[in-house]
Amino acid sequence: MIVVMKTTATQGQILAVQKRIRELGFKDHLSAGAERTVIGVLGGVYAELQDEFAVLDGVDTVVRITKPFKLASREVKEEDTVVRVGPLEIGGGRLVVIAGPCSVDTEENVMETARAVKAAGAHMLRGGAFKPRTSPYAFRGHGETGLKILAQARAETGLPIVTEVMDARDVELVAGYADVLQIGSRNMQNFALLDEVGKARKPVLLKRGMWATVEQWLLAAEYVLSEGNPDVILCERGIVSHETGTRFTFDINAIPLVKRLSHLPIIGDPSHATGKWYLVEPIAIAAVGAGADGLIIEVHPDPDHALSDGPQSLTPENFRKLMERVRAVALAAGHPVQPPPGAGGK
Amino acid sequence: MIVVMKTTATQGQILAVQKRIRELGFKDHLSAGAERTVIGVLGGVYAELQDEFAVLDGVDTVVRITKPFKLASREVKEEDTVVRVGPLEIGGGRLVVIAGPCSVDTEENVMETARAVKAAGAHMLRGGAFKPRTSPYAFRGHGETGLKILAQARAETGLPIVTEVMDARDVELVAGYADVLQIGSRNMQNFALLDEVGKARKPVLLKRGMWATVEQWLLAAEYVLSEGNPDVILCERGIVSHETGTRFTFDINAIPLVKRLSHLPIIGDPSHATGKWYLVEPIAIAAVGAGADGLIIEVHPDPDHALSDGPQSLTPENFRKLMERVRAVALAAGHPVQPPPGAGGK
Amino acid sequence: MIVVMKTTATQGQILAVQKRIRELGFKDHLSAGAERTVIGVLGGVYAELQDEFAVLDGVDTVVRITKPFKLASREVKEEDTVVRVGPLEIGGGRLVVIAGPCSVDTEENVMETARAVKAAGAHMLRGGAFKPRTSPYAFRGHGETGLKILAQARAETGLPIVTEVMDARDVELVAGYADVLQIGSRNMQNFALLDEVGKARKPVLLKRGMWATVEQWLLAAEYVLSEGNPDVILCERGIVSHETGTRFTFDINAIPLVKRLSHLPIIGDPSHATGKWYLVEPIAIAAVGAGADGLIIEVHPDPDHALSDGPQSLTPENFRKLMERVRAVALAAGHPVQPPPGAGGK
Amino acid sequence: MIVVMKTTATQGQILAVQKRIRELGFKDHLSAGAERTVIGVLGGVYAELQDEFAVLDGVDTVVRITKPFKLASREVKEEDTVVRVGPLEIGGGRLVVIAGPCSVDTEENVMETARAVKAAGAHMLRGGAFKPRTSPYAFRGHGETGLKILAQARAETGLPIVTEVMDARDVELVAGYADVLQIGSRNMQNFALLDEVGKARKPVLLKRGMWATVEQWLLAAEYVLSEGNPDVILCERGIVSHETGTRFTFDINAIPLVKRLSHLPIIGDPSHATGKWYLVEPIAIAAVGAGADGLIIEVHPDPDHALSDGPQSLTPENFRKLMERVRAVALAAGHPVQPPPGAGGK
Repeated sequence: MIVVMKTTATQGQILAVQKRIRELGFKDHLSAGAERTVIGVLGGVYAELQDEFAVLDGVDTVVRITKPFKLASREVKEEDTVVRVGPLEIGGGRLVVIAGPCSVDTEENVMETARAVKAAGAHMLRGGAFKPRTSPYAFRGHGETGLKILAQARAETGLPIVTEVMDARDVELVAGYADVLQIGSRNMQNFALLDEVGKARKPVLLKRGMWATVEQWLLAAEYVLSEGNPDVILCERGIVSHETGTRFTFDINAIPLVKRLSHLPIIGDPSHATGKWYLVEPIAIAAVGAGADGLIIEVHPDPDHALSDGPQSLTPENFRKLMERVRAVALAAGHPVQPPPGAGGK
Repeated sequence: MIVVMKTTATQGQILAVQKRIRELGFKDHLSAGAERTVIGVLGGVYAELQDEFAVLDGVDTVVRITKPFKLASREVKEEDTVVRVGPLEIGGGRLVVIAGPCSVDTEENVMETARAVKAAGAHMLRGGAFKPRTSPYAFRGHGETGLKILAQARAETGLPIVTEVMDARDVELVAGYADVLQIGSRNMQNFALLDEVGKARKPVLLKRGMWATVEQWLLAAEYVLSEGNPDVILCERGIVSHETGTRFTFDINAIPLVKRLSHLPIIGDPSHATGKWYLVEPIAIAAVGAGADGLIIEVHPDPDHALSDGPQSLTPENFRKLMERVRAVALAAGHPVQPPPGAGGK
Repeated sequence: MIVVMKTTATQGQILAVQKRIRELGFKDHLSAGAERTVIGVLGGVYAELQDEFAVLDGVDTVVRITKPFKLASREVKEEDTVVRVGPLEIGGGRLVVIAGPCSVDTEENVMETARAVKAAGAHMLRGGAFKPRTSPYAFRGHGETGLKILAQARAETGLPIVTEVMDARDVELVAGYADVLQIGSRNMQNFALLDEVGKARKPVLLKRGMWATVEQWLLAAEYVLSEGNPDVILCERGIVSHETGTRFTFDINAIPLVKRLSHLPIIGDPSHATGKWYLVEPIAIAAVGAGADGLIIEVHPDPDHALSDGPQSLTPENFRKLMERVRAVALAAGHPVQPPPGAGGK
Repeated sequence: MIVVMKTTATQGQILAVQKRIRELGFKDHLSAGAERTVIGVLGGVYAELQDEFAVLDGVDTVVRITKPFKLASREVKEEDTVVRVGPLEIGGGRLVVIAGPCSVDTEENVMETARAVKAAGAHMLRGGAFKPRTSPYAFRGHGETGLKILAQARAETGLPIVTEVMDARDVELVAGYADVLQIGSRNMQNFALLDEVGKARKPVLLKRGMWATVEQWLLAAEYVLSEGNPDVILCERGIVSHETGTRFTFDINAIPLVKRLSHLPIIGDPSHATGKWYLVEPIAIAAVGAGADGLIIEVHPDPDHALSDGPQSLTPENFRKLMERVRAVALAAGHPVQPPPGAGGK
């Protein structure tokens, strides 16, 4: 970290900054230029420190020169993290596709969707038993009953399950059914929940907060990693912006940026990021082109009658077409879709 | 709600929309124009419904004509809600000021701050025992020990306490000490937590999510209200934007907009919204000018050594000056500062 | 347009709205529901009208049901517009790639770049002779001298030229050299300039304002179209957001959204949208995957010494690699790269 | 400027950076830490330089330690700039209020408005003869005829005129009538126009681009200042954000931030920033509270029939009430409203 003094800073102010650096257990390195003095802070600095120096008398600005995340950083761990879910690998260079209804509504719909997405080549099944809803009057999920329906779908199709946990008190329950624990966008900085899934022994799918910078997102991952759970899959799902023609703005830049800053796998969610089913396929293909390790896509046998997010759900037929295009483009882009579970030698 | 059909919509598509409206238990009202047909949906529509119709064949757009919040709406309840905390009134036309350290660090600092802000005319004491921190490596609060320090400060000064609860599991614990339960910005859509404080018998200070629209914020309030807790105080604390010169963008427009849409009281937090102590006073005065019912301000006896958010904390002396200016401007603006608890003839 | 009255609106207020509708030359259509009255406004309504009704007494909200753009709209013109530049077609299903230096610096560099991008398969040459710069102290372009260098590069390589015009007074001059007139992001709502290029007989490359919604962007295109110039190529180049890790946020959603709303071709500019050369290739591939009709990419023989935007420029070697990947992915995505000018029969 | 090398940077990469610094005419100052090397760049660095170093091999990040604006900076000029318009002073500690219709429609309306705002105590008259409009089909102003109407209103009332110029070709014409040249938000980075008003001998009211950071805004002011025109008045008028309940987000933080960074006066435009007449008064008061040097407010004798922006215009009666509240609050806030022109001795 570097403390830049004002051109008008006095010798006393410079000394006071140096004193404060040492009080906090860091080393200082002074560089007196013609115009102004600059003081380096050496040691294990953390993000909040920047603000602490910024308000000292005579200080102009304070600049960080290290990233605030450590375990999530590619500087710390060079090679890509590969998260394993049964026979599947996320982050190992071959694409995975997670598909299913937004929320678990009826057993029939979930089973029908599970069969359809498996037939189309999906690798995992998604579906919400606990649903975050902007309005308290909307459908909020079937809870454990929903989890049981998902487990049944897994038993029949062999597809591992990704499902959201919204409450730290439910982590154990959900982890008893799910193969991957999903943290929703609105909970990206629910630190109690992050701590809890950090202690769980299941991979975590961490959606980006719709307000978060990539750096804040990697710090949220750091919460999970620092509790001892190394299996974090990041998921870009759109950020807020001034554009009103789509539900969110899918931050495609974030995919290669995360790849550069971190070793963690990252997948894209074109369904929530657009809010419109007819934008899902092009954005899915775009995410693959940008280097995503996978996709998570909403599919419902009857989107018009889905209990939530129908407008952004694909029909099984549209999903089948999407998978065909994804396969072709992923191959051309050099990171082919991996064989679905149970495929291959069987 | 109004479903606008495309100019090219067929008779069959129009009938299908009408059928769907009736299936969902609503009434339809058709208006066939020269260019296109428009279908009204009558009944207790909810936000998600808009999307469900938007994807039907032949539909161009769907427009909502009612607000999705009810209990929080001024259409439903005309007169201002006044939240009472002991002898204090929030929302009754006279300003309250909440002040104190960002986080509870040492007993000495909290006691010193409590005495100083009381002397300057503050009405309530704030301080965090549980702290949301972007990085897992930053100070995360003293927990119950911190709550006890706050209770002690209340015992001595008579100032009621506002403190944050971050975890649904802690609501009972925190409510045992606090006079007002604060929900932080990052938890504005932590629905498990909203449900829980909705059941508590303590007023709730609901900070705006930094990504949330005013409508989403009022829907978060609706969660609390719909659980039976009528005492919600809204708090504007800045939203994300492209401006990088300040920590957040204080949405001053939101203050009079909330006043128009809702009967709930609203206060301003200039400390978090700016992130810089030298912007706190002007933004505090601005919030008063815009019609806020109160302010919440960070004060620390030694901002340079605070365990969190030092740069945005005022010294007791600067807070005293701020209170003087706030008193003068609030009086001129027609909503004077109310007497502090224990003041007046008592 | 639909005027939604308040539940408390009086009969007199309803009549006043109807009267105003007729005064303005529109027809009204009243629909009195159980709770509230809704009044349709029939006729050639325009965007500003919405606000005019919104403030009448008793009005709750006013909702537009038609898009404000006409000539740019796919509802008005179903089939894709194909812009022709010599033998090249933009918008006809086969990709074009425009490449070259951000600004025209030296003749040597431009010629070297032109040869290199032609060799790699680019279709057109870009380069700025007039440069918009945030700071008045930065290099602002060589003006007509720069245009002559570009013309020379075209003479040698056969690549048509795309170059920016920033001032309505320069349109004639620039159109004398350029094959396509570029309007920069900052000038998307420079209406004097839009009018002028609308009168020019050269295709216009209209970059999106970094603050603009897709609707505002299409309205800017409408300015050009309504002056009689049908040849508008849209260019997504990133919007402002709260993310600070990249220069702008490339709005990938905008590509398929524009395709749905409009018949105009759209290309992507990954160089400006990211600001970092190492993000250019993945975002270029993503834009192709999302359905863009082309790409515009900065290439410089010596990015470290470029007079502007060096950090986001590719070396000729990196551009060659990018073209290889673009060709493979574009083919797989179903809209192959078109043969470069002068190729084919040779 | 400081170049931070990667922990893995080689000695050769460090030397290459030093070489490049010297090539560009700067001095370098090396500081080799335990973990990484940091190189200071000394001399008259400019904004673009940051990016040029950021892409060199082995470089982690480059941090600027000086502001890119000079003439606009308070570091360069400590004392407040006071812009004089006849007997009025903007920036001298006493508030001015500019009022009038959004666009000049009829002579009668403009004269009526001019008399009304003068009677209420306004200091200057605003009104657009050239109007930027999102849609080419909306009213675009009366041009010189409008300017003549404004001049007539000045002749009768004595109020100086503020009016917008949108085209570099019109600067001379508009400057022939106006007392203050207004640059609209959409033209904040129309550099040809900025250069031209920089050469004019009239004060410039520079509205903030709705996408611009405060730093970019001050750089736009720098364009005008660097052409020799010292009389720049900044005007905050709202920025884009994700909030859809208001037309823009009035960035109240920007007012005290500009005051700290720059010596230029700054006023607030609550009419455009909110888009709703009922939000204008509270935001006007807020701007005064935050330290603005003045206000610019839309007033129209018959807002329902205004040719543009009716919904955000006050009636003369509402403006009169606003002025009363502004006077009271401004006095309490310590920067009272200055006497209107022609008042005082008469």
